[in-house]
Amino acid sequence: MNSWLLFAEIKSDLKQVEAELHQHVKSDVALLAETSAHLLKAGGKRLRPAFALLAGKFNNYSLKQLMPLAVALELIHMATLVHDDVIDASYTRRGIPTVKANWGNKVSIHTGDFLFAKSLLLVSQYENPAVARVLSRVSVEMCQGEIQQIVTAFDTEQNLKDYFYRIKRKTALLISASCQLGATVSGAPDYIIKALKAYGHNLGMAFQITDDVLDLVGDSDEFGKQIGSDLRQGIITLPVILMINKGKTSALLKEIVRKKNKNESDVQEAIQILQEGGGIDQALSISHRYLLKAKKELTKLPKIPTRDAMYYIADFVQARKF
Amino acid sequence: MNSWLLFAEIKSDLKQVEAELHQHVKSDVALLAETSAHLLKAGGKRLRPAFALLAGKFNNYSLKQLMPLAVALELIHMATLVHDDVIDASYTRRGIPTVKANWGNKVSIHTGDFLFAKSLLLVSQYENPAVARVLSRVSVEMCQGEIQQIVTAFDTEQNLKDYFYRIKRKTALLISASCQLGATVSGAPDYIIKALKAYGHNLGMAFQITDDVLDLVGDSDEFGKQIGSDLRQGIITLPVILMINKGKTSALLKEIVRKKNKNESDVQEAIQILQEGGGIDQALSISHRYLLKAKKELTKLPKIPTRDAMYYIADFVQARKF
Repeated sequence: MNSWLLFAEIKSDLKQVEAELHQHVKSDVALLAETSAHLLKAGGKRLRPAFALLAGKFNNYSLKQLMPLAVALELIHMATLVHDDVIDASYTRRGIPTVKANWGNKVSIHTGDFLFAKSLLLVSQYENPAVARVLSRVSVEMCQGEIQQIVTAFDTEQNLKDYFYRIKRKTALLISASCQLGATVSGAPDYIIKALKAYGHNLGMAFQITDDVLDLVGDSDEFGKQIGSDLRQGIITLPVILMINKGKTSALLKEIVRKKNKNESDVQEAIQILQEGGGIDQALSISHRYLLKAKKELTKLPKIPTRDAMYYIADFVQARKF
Repeated sequence: MNSWLLFAEIKSDLKQVEAELHQHVKSDVALLAETSAHLLKAGGKRLRPAFALLAGKFNNYSLKQLMPLAVALELIHMATLVHDDVIDASYTRRGIPTVKANWGNKVSIHTGDFLFAKSLLLVSQYENPAVARVLSRVSVEMCQGEIQQIVTAFDTEQNLKDYFYRIKRKTALLISASCQLGATVSGAPDYIIKALKAYGHNLGMAFQITDDVLDLVGDSDEFGKQIGSDLRQGIITLPVILMINKGKTSALLKEIVRKKNKNESDVQEAIQILQEGGGIDQALSISHRYLLKAKKELTKLPKIPTRDAMYYIADFVQARKF
């Protein structure tokens, strides 16, 4: 199934969002325009703008009114991606970063800052200060999640609560805000805003769990990333946490997960333990529960075709392989 | 002269701002609270909050009303400092280890993002969306300035316009916004806001020129930084630009400035050329001109004691040695 079918009713509007995105990353500084455009061309599903537009359908839909929000949501997402790319590896020579390494980090940081500031400039144009308020609050919490991911790296003592804390901030908050604010800027009543916010939260949680599962058992070509990258970076995800206190395999799993330098067979062995021990399946069933909650929120909304589309999107998250 | 005398009338209010700053960098993520508190304890002049409070004196002064702005201004400033540290391989700032030196690049980036998002969250609480609008626009331009500093590094062909473009974004914009928004949130009439904004711009330009001069001829103990750090990093400042097209010394100066790895005697030689050739003095006279413009703006304001304090601050920028 092509994911674009899910967004059929907003397809042409999403194209306009895409064009606006390109307009907004233009800068009188050539290098910033270049790096930002490069990020945009790298693609992406534009999920957050899509959710904002879909949410807008539940009241007075106006692309013009939704546009600054839709663009801002994608810019924030891009900003987090580019800051994630900055690495700690010490590309230094005699204590001084090589020009190449230094240039890479410098440009990534300022490009991210630029995109983030742009996004808040966009939403500060709404007369309703709630939009900027929600997005800056979400941004604060997203940073907290990022730091928590660093703090908990390689820590096999963490629990489910730690994991849910992190993925809420990493993914669910911004998707939730996309749904919430799409309704807000369309002037929807509170009960609609609330249901869409909760839908986005639950869908976002499921989305990240699925993402974490695919990082272990996905097809690397379809998924577009190297398999096992979380394990390698010490990011401990749901299947691992679920397995770690189980039976006789857990000691070995723990040992591998804690290793700072894992080789290919370490990674393969850990994945095998997670598959055979049921960690993968159990994680997927938790994801499924979030999707059921997301669908339940939809029942509170008016019966319009968009509601069905959002229902199918939840199905798609469950089935997705990339 | 103690710079605090200049801020006598807001001294106790600045102490409350300091306390609020400490409150606001608290986070449920221990490491973020730690890195942010570390940055705060490293000190700083809190110039931007001070200017916001002073500007507030020209209408209905209310610390309560000014507080979110004052805190936000310092948080933005701190965010840029912590991101600068990632970039410039600075391991100390004001004599103490930077966040980067203690915790690494990733943590520095997310701490900066956290502080920046916090600051925009604070200003999004004003009903008047102009505050968030101005601060996010300033932030966008500050990023452009940072990138332009990278692009123009070691480039001896750049001109005065390039330099002024950069220092406006590096320093003047945020000081200008501090003055402007202090008046805005106090409900001051437009002519006051405008004059204060222009005062802040001119003062900020002079402040950065002086800073750049002190980087060459300051007392490293008083200044708190190693002398010649701009030269070492390839940041080309006003005295260098003024000298580079002059007489027979310019070829040698150009050659040194372009060198990626300068030794101590290179730096000393460049500084000697800048002093003897008049580059330093000429830069200071340009700074003086900005200060005269700043003072002229003050004549448009009501004659209250704060106006005199702002006049003396301009004198202090001219005379400062740190």
